[in-house]
Amino acid sequence: MAPKVKPAILKGTRDFLPSQMVKRAYLVDTIRKVFERFGFDPLETPAIERWETLSGKYGEEGERLIYRFQDRGGRELGLRYDLTVPLARVVAMYPHLPKPFKRYQIQPVWRAEKPQKGRFREFVQCDVDIVGSSDMLADAEIIAVVYAALTELGLQGFKIKINNRKVIRGMIEVAGAPIEQELDIARAIDKLDKIGVEGVRKELEQRQIDKAVIERILDIMTLRGSDESVFAAAEKVLGTSEAALEGLQELRQVFEYLDLLEVPTGVYELDLSLVRGLDYYTGPVFETVMEQPKIGSIMGGGRYDRLIGIFTGQDIPATGTSIGLDRLVTVMDELDAWPIQTETRTEVLVVRFDPELTPLYLHITQTLRKSGFNTDFYTGKKNLRGQLGYAKDRGIPVVILIGSDEAQSQSATVRHMPTGQQATLPQSNLIPYIRKLLGKE
Amino acid sequence: MAPKVKPAILKGTRDFLPSQMVKRAYLVDTIRKVFERFGFDPLETPAIERWETLSGKYGEEGERLIYRFQDRGGRELGLRYDLTVPLARVVAMYPHLPKPFKRYQIQPVWRAEKPQKGRFREFVQCDVDIVGSSDMLADAEIIAVVYAALTELGLQGFKIKINNRKVIRGMIEVAGAPIEQELDIARAIDKLDKIGVEGVRKELEQRQIDKAVIERILDIMTLRGSDESVFAAAEKVLGTSEAALEGLQELRQVFEYLDLLEVPTGVYELDLSLVRGLDYYTGPVFETVMEQPKIGSIMGGGRYDRLIGIFTGQDIPATGTSIGLDRLVTVMDELDAWPIQTETRTEVLVVRFDPELTPLYLHITQTLRKSGFNTDFYTGKKNLRGQLGYAKDRGIPVVILIGSDEAQSQSATVRHMPTGQQATLPQSNLIPYIRKLLGKE
Repeated sequence: MAPKVKPAILKGTRDFLPSQMVKRAYLVDTIRKVFERFGFDPLETPAIERWETLSGKYGEEGERLIYRFQDRGGRELGLRYDLTVPLARVVAMYPHLPKPFKRYQIQPVWRAEKPQKGRFREFVQCDVDIVGSSDMLADAEIIAVVYAALTELGLQGFKIKINNRKVIRGMIEVAGAPIEQELDIARAIDKLDKIGVEGVRKELEQRQIDKAVIERILDIMTLRGSDESVFAAAEKVLGTSEAALEGLQELRQVFEYLDLLEVPTGVYELDLSLVRGLDYYTGPVFETVMEQPKIGSIMGGGRYDRLIGIFTGQDIPATGTSIGLDRLVTVMDELDAWPIQTETRTEVLVVRFDPELTPLYLHITQTLRKSGFNTDFYTGKKNLRGQLGYAKDRGIPVVILIGSDEAQSQSATVRHMPTGQQATLPQSNLIPYIRKLLGKE
Repeated sequence: MAPKVKPAILKGTRDFLPSQMVKRAYLVDTIRKVFERFGFDPLETPAIERWETLSGKYGEEGERLIYRFQDRGGRELGLRYDLTVPLARVVAMYPHLPKPFKRYQIQPVWRAEKPQKGRFREFVQCDVDIVGSSDMLADAEIIAVVYAALTELGLQGFKIKINNRKVIRGMIEVAGAPIEQELDIARAIDKLDKIGVEGVRKELEQRQIDKAVIERILDIMTLRGSDESVFAAAEKVLGTSEAALEGLQELRQVFEYLDLLEVPTGVYELDLSLVRGLDYYTGPVFETVMEQPKIGSIMGGGRYDRLIGIFTGQDIPATGTSIGLDRLVTVMDELDAWPIQTETRTEVLVVRFDPELTPLYLHITQTLRKSGFNTDFYTGKKNLRGQLGYAKDRGIPVVILIGSDEAQSQSATVRHMPTGQQATLPQSNLIPYIRKLLGKE
């Protein structure tokens, strides 16, 4: 019989088989716990949004990537493209939500991208935002919770870069560029990581920016040194711009709060070249870059005090960030940093050796389950060797074998798959023995 | 300033604000843990599937409810409609998955329904399936894991009804109806719960079934009594049908395994009128009905030995079930059975009374977080009274107040919001005191 339908999947989307899912669930559970520890509450929004909600929020290029369709009633709809615009809609729809509204949201988003390595049409974002606070403490909380989450995962070797859109604006003012070119210039600066200083210079030249202006911008954005020396230099060079001074003052506050929130100094730094692509940022912006291993950005965000006003008619300050789950999986894989068994959630397989003994097998299976072990009982048709192969293929670490001899003497043979070691012991000793084997003591 | 976009949501979809999300996350976490306890592994599949994958699987009426659209390349796509067809596709695409493949999957599905009370366009299914075992033990495991999950949630007052499609077929044969009418008749019987015996009789009459046949069917399907008496009666009445006898024999095995898996006898029952709507079931079918409170079906499933063959070209036996998350929320609400604080995940709010004391507040906040309390620090602009209102509105049970006097004497005032009780104690005693207040000892 030939298959009627070739089994296939849309390019750029993925199935997460158990060995992937176990990892992803571990990350999500850990991140969630840290978000909650910082007083953030969970939120979920629908995958399908009305087109009006999504349209006009992501820039021309972004909007083209929204999965758009009509329902049978001819209504224009689109799939969730990020978690920030739905949050803004929620805040506007439920005006009585207590504010500051601290919410986290971990859901997939969809983008009609051309699929390529590391770029997907469906991927999960882990967002954390504070809506209704203009205090720099809110921005510091966002950075601190990300630091805590990454640390909880055992990660080091990352750097949190911090800047302020007001400083970018001031830099452009002071350099003498017309303010209409602000977004254009900002977009060019944003590429520094990818194309280097020379690349940014060329980009700016192509945009008809005056050469002297370009040099002044490059000078400022590449200021390096201790945070204090960069602050001091920037305050001096940008001293004629009110926006820049306000932005720098905000950042000094953020840094002070980060210290109080016990984020170690070496973890974050002032980086005057950081822009963050999205147009809607209005204040502090931040990005976490993995340096060891060199994976690039694993989190980005910032303050967006004017986005929610599109829905409410009244500006509500907000700040937040998004952690990319896929990047985190890559980092953990490269560092081999998983503190858990990642192949399967199942810890014990009870082998079906002699079908006559099924009642005994099921009794032992149930006893183990009630003792907190994730336990499977084999329901297929393979022989003993096949069943051991099954445990190996799934990555189940402990196998329990009971033949008629063992049944007679109320004993059981326990095989530890990773080492191949086997021991026969009284059935009454199974639980402490397995607990030890699994390192669950 | 007027809003540029009216904030609105597609009818039939929902935002889950924190007070809903906390409940849903509790259910999902509990169910997931039980699924894993029984040796099931997690799987996730993409929201967007190729149209060929979805088409022709859900019957004419079902297919019309699939959200269907084209991507920019003109490819026909659809949104996930259930979790069973994607599972079948996965099994076909990854032939090396160890079998039996025991997987659970908790994800939203979409249906272009006319929205009405209790019927949604996006809702979450919790599925658990065993692929690659034709053993009745697999069916029993599915029923047992559902029983364990509902019990773990503290639920009682439910009944698991069990039947077999082979028995339905045998019943139709024995009653003397032509086999082409099997699905038609089955669909009419399926409505018994909703329209009663009289209703089913009318439905069958409308379908031009012979009156004597109808009466014989109604007689058999309404057999009631102890499981053993229904088994005995059915074996007698249906004794001339090989299919029926095979089906009944299978069910006897399922019942035996349920006993070995320690599912109490009163929880499940043989119900010869149970059909389960979907066309693809081939063996045992089951449904869990909430009787106290009367919510109706909260879980349904069965064996489908021929669905996967559509993708593989070769039949692979499979059985499984789906628990509806929304129904469970309703049941827990009606029974007021939540064993957790449901308004928020946040346990403690540190009030910002005197901005000068922010360093102290943040120190205490961080100390509480490190001690495992979900702790928020207020970042808004309200005064003390406003901040207490904020804690009340969010449902945060513990508030910590420190003014300059308390700061001076290294003490803190702790307010328990549900009772309004307040106590002032040394800051060094905060942790055990709050632990006690929250019943976390």
